[in-house]
Amino acid sequence: MSEKHRVIGRSVPRIDGREKVTGAAKYTGDLTFPNLLHGKILTSPHAHARILSIDTSEAERLPGVKAVITHKDVPTLKYGISPARWDENIFCIDKVRFVGDKVAAVACIDEETCYKALNLIRVEYDVLPAVLDFRHAMDEGMPQVHDEYPRNINVEIHQNFGDVEAAFAAAHHVRTDAFLGQRTYQAPIEPHSAISYWEGEKLTVYSSTQSPHYFQYYIAREFGMKMGDVRVAKPYLGGGFGGKLEPTGLEFSGAVLARRTGRPVRMFYDRAEMFRHNRGRHAQYMEITTGVDADGRLLGAHANFLMDGGAYTSLGIATAYYAGALLPLTYEFDNYRFDLFRLYTNLPACGAQRGHGAPQPKYAFESHLDNVASDLGIDPMEIRLRNARRPDTVTLNDFQVNTCELKACLEQAREISGWAEKKGKLPRGRGIGVATGSFVSGAGYPIYRTDLPHAAAFIKVHEDGTAATLYTGATDIGQGSDTILCQMAAEAMGYRYEQMKIVAADTETTPMDLGAYASRQTLMSGTAVKQAGEAVKKQILEMASVMLHVPCDDLECGDGLVFSRSRELEAPLTFEEVARKHFVLRGPLLGHGSYTPPKLGGKFKGAAVGTSPAYSFGVQVSEVEIDEDTGEVTVHDVWDVHDCGTVINPRLLHGQVHGALAMGMGESVWEQVLFDDKGNIRNPDLANYRLPTALDMPRIHSRVIEPHEPAGPWGAKEVGEGSTNPTMGCFSNAIFDAMGVRVNSLPLSYEKIWRAMKEKREKDAAEG
Amino acid sequence: MSEKHRVIGRSVPRIDGREKVTGAAKYTGDLTFPNLLHGKILTSPHAHARILSIDTSEAERLPGVKAVITHKDVPTLKYGISPARWDENIFCIDKVRFVGDKVAAVACIDEETCYKALNLIRVEYDVLPAVLDFRHAMDEGMPQVHDEYPRNINVEIHQNFGDVEAAFAAAHHVRTDAFLGQRTYQAPIEPHSAISYWEGEKLTVYSSTQSPHYFQYYIAREFGMKMGDVRVAKPYLGGGFGGKLEPTGLEFSGAVLARRTGRPVRMFYDRAEMFRHNRGRHAQYMEITTGVDADGRLLGAHANFLMDGGAYTSLGIATAYYAGALLPLTYEFDNYRFDLFRLYTNLPACGAQRGHGAPQPKYAFESHLDNVASDLGIDPMEIRLRNARRPDTVTLNDFQVNTCELKACLEQAREISGWAEKKGKLPRGRGIGVATGSFVSGAGYPIYRTDLPHAAAFIKVHEDGTAATLYTGATDIGQGSDTILCQMAAEAMGYRYEQMKIVAADTETTPMDLGAYASRQTLMSGTAVKQAGEAVKKQILEMASVMLHVPCDDLECGDGLVFSRSRELEAPLTFEEVARKHFVLRGPLLGHGSYTPPKLGGKFKGAAVGTSPAYSFGVQVSEVEIDEDTGEVTVHDVWDVHDCGTVINPRLLHGQVHGALAMGMGESVWEQVLFDDKGNIRNPDLANYRLPTALDMPRIHSRVIEPHEPAGPWGAKEVGEGSTNPTMGCFSNAIFDAMGVRVNSLPLSYEKIWRAMKEKREKDAAEG
Repeated sequence: MSEKHRVIGRSVPRIDGREKVTGAAKYTGDLTFPNLLHGKILTSPHAHARILSIDTSEAERLPGVKAVITHKDVPTLKYGISPARWDENIFCIDKVRFVGDKVAAVACIDEETCYKALNLIRVEYDVLPAVLDFRHAMDEGMPQVHDEYPRNINVEIHQNFGDVEAAFAAAHHVRTDAFLGQRTYQAPIEPHSAISYWEGEKLTVYSSTQSPHYFQYYIAREFGMKMGDVRVAKPYLGGGFGGKLEPTGLEFSGAVLARRTGRPVRMFYDRAEMFRHNRGRHAQYMEITTGVDADGRLLGAHANFLMDGGAYTSLGIATAYYAGALLPLTYEFDNYRFDLFRLYTNLPACGAQRGHGAPQPKYAFESHLDNVASDLGIDPMEIRLRNARRPDTVTLNDFQVNTCELKACLEQAREISGWAEKKGKLPRGRGIGVATGSFVSGAGYPIYRTDLPHAAAFIKVHEDGTAATLYTGATDIGQGSDTILCQMAAEAMGYRYEQMKIVAADTETTPMDLGAYASRQTLMSGTAVKQAGEAVKKQILEMASVMLHVPCDDLECGDGLVFSRSRELEAPLTFEEVARKHFVLRGPLLGHGSYTPPKLGGKFKGAAVGTSPAYSFGVQVSEVEIDEDTGEVTVHDVWDVHDCGTVINPRLLHGQVHGALAMGMGESVWEQVLFDDKGNIRNPDLANYRLPTALDMPRIHSRVIEPHEPAGPWGAKEVGEGSTNPTMGCFSNAIFDAMGVRVNSLPLSYEKIWRAMKEKREKDAAEG
Repeated sequence: MSEKHRVIGRSVPRIDGREKVTGAAKYTGDLTFPNLLHGKILTSPHAHARILSIDTSEAERLPGVKAVITHKDVPTLKYGISPARWDENIFCIDKVRFVGDKVAAVACIDEETCYKALNLIRVEYDVLPAVLDFRHAMDEGMPQVHDEYPRNINVEIHQNFGDVEAAFAAAHHVRTDAFLGQRTYQAPIEPHSAISYWEGEKLTVYSSTQSPHYFQYYIAREFGMKMGDVRVAKPYLGGGFGGKLEPTGLEFSGAVLARRTGRPVRMFYDRAEMFRHNRGRHAQYMEITTGVDADGRLLGAHANFLMDGGAYTSLGIATAYYAGALLPLTYEFDNYRFDLFRLYTNLPACGAQRGHGAPQPKYAFESHLDNVASDLGIDPMEIRLRNARRPDTVTLNDFQVNTCELKACLEQAREISGWAEKKGKLPRGRGIGVATGSFVSGAGYPIYRTDLPHAAAFIKVHEDGTAATLYTGATDIGQGSDTILCQMAAEAMGYRYEQMKIVAADTETTPMDLGAYASRQTLMSGTAVKQAGEAVKKQILEMASVMLHVPCDDLECGDGLVFSRSRELEAPLTFEEVARKHFVLRGPLLGHGSYTPPKLGGKFKGAAVGTSPAYSFGVQVSEVEIDEDTGEVTVHDVWDVHDCGTVINPRLLHGQVHGALAMGMGESVWEQVLFDDKGNIRNPDLANYRLPTALDMPRIHSRVIEPHEPAGPWGAKEVGEGSTNPTMGCFSNAIFDAMGVRVNSLPLSYEKIWRAMKEKREKDAAEG
């Protein structure tokens, strides 16, 4: 914390903490409305099938059923969240493409009737062979998921920077490793839900969304409405992690059901439906080749990836670009080739999940780099220090990096983890590993093409100055953005956090903001809030100047007090007094601000996806213990050092690190969405989909390095997703250190580790 | 409607109409919160008694009781709404002063437990003799309601303008009449309720209030808090009519109960409690003397009034001043004396009710004036035309009148009612009467002393210009202010009403406004809204000027289109396009405005109460039929002509006239709160307190005259209360015309009319 800040840099309590812990906070599912109907979607039981007929007559006759709709009753304009590939319909028209694809929906007087009605809808299917293994999706003779996309290729990327072949030819050592990442799922504690109702030609949707703005835009687009006629508001929200960024069947069919019935309709996904809706992590096959010099310095790299996209695009185009585009960010090298196919399969669509495309490739790259270090006999910490990015550099794919304390992060992690005393010196079964990560602080381009600013904010000061309300479209999805934005507002105004109030994430009552994704809100929404606060402060100082007969330039305001920079005032003024006087003499005291990202460079089209105003960097070191009899992994300690720029709220920041680590740990060791040979999810519930709990967590030692990032408000960058990136590689490397085995497919399950140890023993025995 | 207006002057549908008719609108009592407790107040069964002891121990032991509080548990700072007489405590300390006075309160898990708990609180009283008849409250030896106020005098006014005695001496005819007005009660369809909860040191109160601002101020004052730490929000509200302007025991004790229990507490008055809380019309004894010349021109008047204040001041000081101060407004005369005593009695406190102090004195004066006309053989219409106020005049008590079309109102009422054909020519039992009225358009001074503006507003335009949200503290209590303020916003912006949204009446999310009373919002809140809209339009035109390369001065904007004043544009712009461009290039499009009344004159202190920026004027003519056998009055037709300045929404305006007439009619013929000799209300329910229903209503012919009032937005003045003022006098005069009898006490009940006719028959027979 810098001494010069009065409000930011402090672990103030969450602004919504009391309401959440007392149960007063209302989530979407807690809202109720007179004459509320319940809606439910009928989904496909087949992974791939032609729809021959749909008979809703029996369902319609069931008492309590108010509406039954199919593709005939809804707009057939295709939608999606990546505008380059709108490929989804509200309801399937010709065929279904995964178990869970949307076929029809009902609105009924209660949930029970919904389930009965769904059972009465008769759908005749002609079951088709399905594409279930993405690694064979392009094979000759495979079924086509979408006729428009030959060989099931949804996205194809081939990028070349420098001359990789020449770099490999010149290298001291070239090595290739292949890794497999699995489908995982965000598992937010609050399943997604939406309530829709119409007032005349105007639609209101309460939704557990990460972005009221995108929902508003896509809903308006689907129904051919003006955006101003669609209101999207986010009540309290219980976690998103990327899964709630795109509008779903709940919003689209809910709006149609509400329209037809003239009543509000509440819809939700139960946990199994959440799994089937998915939009979680892509499964990925990742082949990494690098060439290094004798000192382990990277000369070139080739990333050759296949991604399981599932049945629809979702955010997959961005995921695909992120997968490759962020790899040259942590380490400096000049030659890079990136090849990727994102493939359609007859499985649930994959989308964005914390870290977006980055964590699995990072797992692959960091595991691979340890292998390279091992090949060359270089300490894993040392090989990273030698390659680590420096500040004020530009990546080979044109990302402008301002601040970057990756080296300092590595050094600090080495020191606090006791790396020197532990590496190679721990007792048998114990190991220590390191990995790095980096992430964007918001995306330079919005998801759909628009020139609108990315964030706006305004602040109203109460008439007697004893409170101020921040209006922001930014979306607190549990990460605490409402709190840090209020801190920023107070800091910029020279006010006190304790007197801040907030109105957020409602397209009717707050100014636009693109919402919570790509770790953008601290930097982008924060900049808009800072501007708004500074506009208030300017008016305060001008008013105070009149009141005190002191030139405006000599006045400053902080923590609710107006004071002179040059001398002690006999009668200093409070912010409150000045604000009140302003209201009396000059009218309402309002400030506003907005944020548009700077024009970002980019030699090639793909750069657009990864470019950001600023990048965070981080290092994790973990110490693990392996049970040789069972393969069980116990993670004892994790040291995380994050270069996040200026910290706004240390407690919330460390909370993000803990959360990111927990998610990364789950993906490392336990999590995988499993399918049977018909495309059914085998573990669509939280009993069988194994998430880490508090009891599974290691001791976490979270540290920050705070360079002043010029692109961020008060020098701030991201933290929410970045800390997910090193985790899987770090655990993989610690296991490698402990047992000398490398498991090349996630999760690094006990069974796989046990098998790897067994194979190594057998091989050692055979060789020995 | 003026041709030059595009949005105002149109009967647009209410902005809240759909939510109200579908039942979606949530009123205070509809809100719920986790762990909500129910609170109830224990009230006095005695009109006047000393409290000897209060034992709450048994109540506290009842399962389900969470808190029991008495005066020992609450601040003892006296409160009230008229700052000159704060005389009420949250709970009585030494003695109770009316049946219904507040003694203790409980918070329990449900309502049933509340009633049980109240029964278990033991209060020992020493019953005292009570003051029940205000006309004897000053008598020697009467009990004292408040020790601090000798002879039970709460307010005493003696005003002299000119020389009344000289005027009377010079008059051709001097006459005195005495009238009695009764206690009536507003009977809003929604009883008053409040929900209070604390978050740390911050208090939130949802209340069915007419003024979130005053509630916030008085609650903060009572608890020694900053205003910014008290949030008061008004959900939908079902009628106030003056009765919900002052904070009640529900807010004060609810806040304490919520504090002690740490839980939200909901409290409400049931209908009987509403009657006992009262704050309705004062009973008034009114002696009117006037002197006129031979043509019936008023030379001087003396108003000598007694008012029944009840046990506390409430808004009674203002009521008292209004009673006399508005009398010289309708008619022009130079000499005036006003004497009034407002007296404490051991009955529920009286306060403000539609028309405030004016309707009963107006009933008295208009009845009296008809008597004078009859004495002189002048047509009642003619005597009013001869005395009617003219525009651009100043009243004897220094009210600056700008627009005043009273004469035109009289002439139009005479014409449309067929006065010439009917007056004196109707069949026996039928009669026609006329009366005038006038009212303020907001009070020049706020209720508590403050230099804050009286209203403020801001408007946010949606980022793509397809919607705009008005933020106003103004309070829609059913009268439709949200609708007309949105019309005004759209008109000022050059926008469309259909695209307006509103956030209103919440001290946290909207700018301050003094609320709904004294018919102030159209003029005062409206001026602030107009300014805010004009600020938006200015930015739109500036942006459009850049886009069109047309000088700003040549551009205009209306109904959502930007156009050139001088020529037809090849490609005219929509407001939406320009607003969107503004957001892209210049950030959020926000406008704000505020309203502070002009410094108003006033030779004497009392003028402060009545002074307003503008005054409405109105005339009513009614045709009635009397059943000679029963005295039953049937009102066939009422013609109302109102000078309200520019009409913003004709349908809502006429709705106000209808409502005012209904209330005036109830007070004329049926309504009276009745007491037994112990001070208990005999008719505290809507079965026995006789309100007019839709079936009782006459045909109403509502017309307007629209001078352009310079003090009001687009020339608008008031309508909500003004139309209540002529009604009682008008009915009284029609009955007089029909039967030659004058009933000098309200209500003009069938029985009283029957008795008066009987007396007249007997007298005529004796004389004949």
